[in-house]
Amino acid sequence: MAAGIVPLPVAEKLVAAGQRMDRRGWVPATSGNLSARLSGDRMAITRSGVHKGFLETQDIIEVDFAGRSLTPGMKPSAETLLHCQIYALWPDIGSVLHGHSIPATALTMALPEASAIHLQGYEILKAWSNVVSTHDISVALPIIDNDQDMPRLAAQLQPWLEQGRAPIGYVLRGHGIYVWGSDVNAALYRLEALEFLLATEIERRKLV
Amino acid sequence: MAAGIVPLPVAEKLVAAGQRMDRRGWVPATSGNLSARLSGDRMAITRSGVHKGFLETQDIIEVDFAGRSLTPGMKPSAETLLHCQIYALWPDIGSVLHGHSIPATALTMALPEASAIHLQGYEILKAWSNVVSTHDISVALPIIDNDQDMPRLAAQLQPWLEQGRAPIGYVLRGHGIYVWGSDVNAALYRLEALEFLLATEIERRKLV
Amino acid sequence: MAAGIVPLPVAEKLVAAGQRMDRRGWVPATSGNLSARLSGDRMAITRSGVHKGFLETQDIIEVDFAGRSLTPGMKPSAETLLHCQIYALWPDIGSVLHGHSIPATALTMALPEASAIHLQGYEILKAWSNVVSTHDISVALPIIDNDQDMPRLAAQLQPWLEQGRAPIGYVLRGHGIYVWGSDVNAALYRLEALEFLLATEIERRKLV
Amino acid sequence: MAAGIVPLPVAEKLVAAGQRMDRRGWVPATSGNLSARLSGDRMAITRSGVHKGFLETQDIIEVDFAGRSLTPGMKPSAETLLHCQIYALWPDIGSVLHGHSIPATALTMALPEASAIHLQGYEILKAWSNVVSTHDISVALPIIDNDQDMPRLAAQLQPWLEQGRAPIGYVLRGHGIYVWGSDVNAALYRLEALEFLLATEIERRKLV
Repeated sequence: MAAGIVPLPVAEKLVAAGQRMDRRGWVPATSGNLSARLSGDRMAITRSGVHKGFLETQDIIEVDFAGRSLTPGMKPSAETLLHCQIYALWPDIGSVLHGHSIPATALTMALPEASAIHLQGYEILKAWSNVVSTHDISVALPIIDNDQDMPRLAAQLQPWLEQGRAPIGYVLRGHGIYVWGSDVNAALYRLEALEFLLATEIERRKLV
Repeated sequence: MAAGIVPLPVAEKLVAAGQRMDRRGWVPATSGNLSARLSGDRMAITRSGVHKGFLETQDIIEVDFAGRSLTPGMKPSAETLLHCQIYALWPDIGSVLHGHSIPATALTMALPEASAIHLQGYEILKAWSNVVSTHDISVALPIIDNDQDMPRLAAQLQPWLEQGRAPIGYVLRGHGIYVWGSDVNAALYRLEALEFLLATEIERRKLV
Repeated sequence: MAAGIVPLPVAEKLVAAGQRMDRRGWVPATSGNLSARLSGDRMAITRSGVHKGFLETQDIIEVDFAGRSLTPGMKPSAETLLHCQIYALWPDIGSVLHGHSIPATALTMALPEASAIHLQGYEILKAWSNVVSTHDISVALPIIDNDQDMPRLAAQLQPWLEQGRAPIGYVLRGHGIYVWGSDVNAALYRLEALEFLLATEIERRKLV
Repeated sequence: MAAGIVPLPVAEKLVAAGQRMDRRGWVPATSGNLSARLSGDRMAITRSGVHKGFLETQDIIEVDFAGRSLTPGMKPSAETLLHCQIYALWPDIGSVLHGHSIPATALTMALPEASAIHLQGYEILKAWSNVVSTHDISVALPIIDNDQDMPRLAAQLQPWLEQGRAPIGYVLRGHGIYVWGSDVNAALYRLEALEFLLATEIERRKLV
């Protein structure tokens, strides 16, 4: 495989994930980023500025773990660095997904002082079977203040990630969610579980 | 038909039901279970760990009424026992559906002390034409605390079911809904009716 | 055309309308009824007990204006009488649609004493161009208490309809909406406009 | 190209945008208007009275910048004037989109005295990369009172537009949104971003 050419099955999986996220309303405008690990400390990731619901396989480019494009003439998003960070940290993670949803954005903006959302009593937490085996547990989802400076944002995230304090993902305030899994589908299922949890939390809070 | 091979029309009906539940957002990640009665005290049920929106017919396996797989190498979900319980109790029930929805989860988590939701005045209650012939009636939908121990959960459910105190289904708190009907479509229509009722109850409660 | 056989283009229009209503979540389970005027004081209407999202053209039967089936062996819904009432009253009405939506049900159940919802200031009211030419008007949408006795319900509706006090349709409390138009598409667009108004009213009321 | 005949690729883009807006519920009944700039001070725009989810390419007509139809026998909507205004003001704008959404309508009706919604802290504001490069900014979205007199409404909008006080679009109270971009897709992405912001603002306000 020539450098910069993403294997077609990987590109197709990311395109399908983008279409599904779009149908759910999680990637408005050109928001979101989807990536998958390739061999040799490289990854496939959506190029900058493209709508994730209208992806074509040529919109999936190859990038090294320093965030540099290996696909001639194609630029990755600035947020690629946050994907690199996850892959560099955990060799068993094969895909990182980032989307913007109404529940994630509304809930973090309604809680300007909160540094985490505590999720407790939800069966769907078992979607993270590596860390959760029962609904009867409280799991913290960190809320990190948004920042346009990606190296600074990554540095702020690093201790949370290293110390296992973001076991099911994290939310950037007013921005969106980051989740990861062993492959694209595993990450997608966790994204669904996390969006379900946030949408449910919003409804629960309106009722109590 | 060889043991362990689910008849194709049954498998196809369960696949179609899963796709529809997925479009409605009722089976996030790998949540939910769908089953149909087969002859000889056996049932067809979705295997463990599969996404219900991406089901293929080979993901539907055969299981006996003790919850043991008859399909070599394929494991049913732990919750299969709750399906067995319904089939063993009522010979006229041909399908059991279980999904996770935002309204069912949010409403039961917002009412941590409630043991039932009382539904009254809704025309759609007539979807259970076996027990309801008018909107002008109050029907109790039991809320059972979630439990990872399936035999214990089934034991707790047994008196509710036997005494007809779950006439339209039941909800596991923070988890999801169980409904049943004479065949897959009948169960699916009741699932739609019950999800409609819970979504409506949530909106009604926010307005009063 | 033999008696009892609905012309295929009419049946296809009703099937398409049912599929669209189903995608919007307005016909859960087997709820709703869709009809279109035929020549000679007859109409085409969905048969009893069928899911409106899974309609086939043979599910559309022929009925006279007294609500009697002209299609051998096929039964219309009891609510057919409410369709008859509209056609008998206004010769320019070519289609009547009835659906069950979460906003219509939640709003009427949250207002147990109200006999109407007053809609004012909405541009979409111009969807009823026969009675409304500006947003700057207050239009009453009557709420009628639900009743399982159709002749009695029709009798209660008759003065509202005759006196023009249901200019954009009506809502049965805890049940659903009735709208009508010159043909199936005209009725469908008004159903969309009315559902939009009720969903908007619910959100507006939660904000003020 | 004969006068009055819109180039097919332009018509197809507007049809696709209409279908997408319809799937999101942003163009109920025959609401909304979609346009694209053509050469020679002319534009392509949806004709009056058509449903934007059921558009065909022949429903896209040619109109001059005074709002006069160049397509024989086809009438543009009265609101065409608001599209003309944008094209006349900014030569780099290639498309204007207008839709009616539940969040835009509910929020402006719930704030009868407000002349703007102030949006702050949202990452998605960067969809307007010409005016916004960070989430850490407050952007005003003007709310203009609805008016059936289009020249008067355009005259009221003119100073807002000329002075750059509607940097991301505007909302007509109880009516809908206007956004624009360099081409149909750019305008569509901004429409998605703006609808996301309004839906999020509604949820945020219900939580605080």
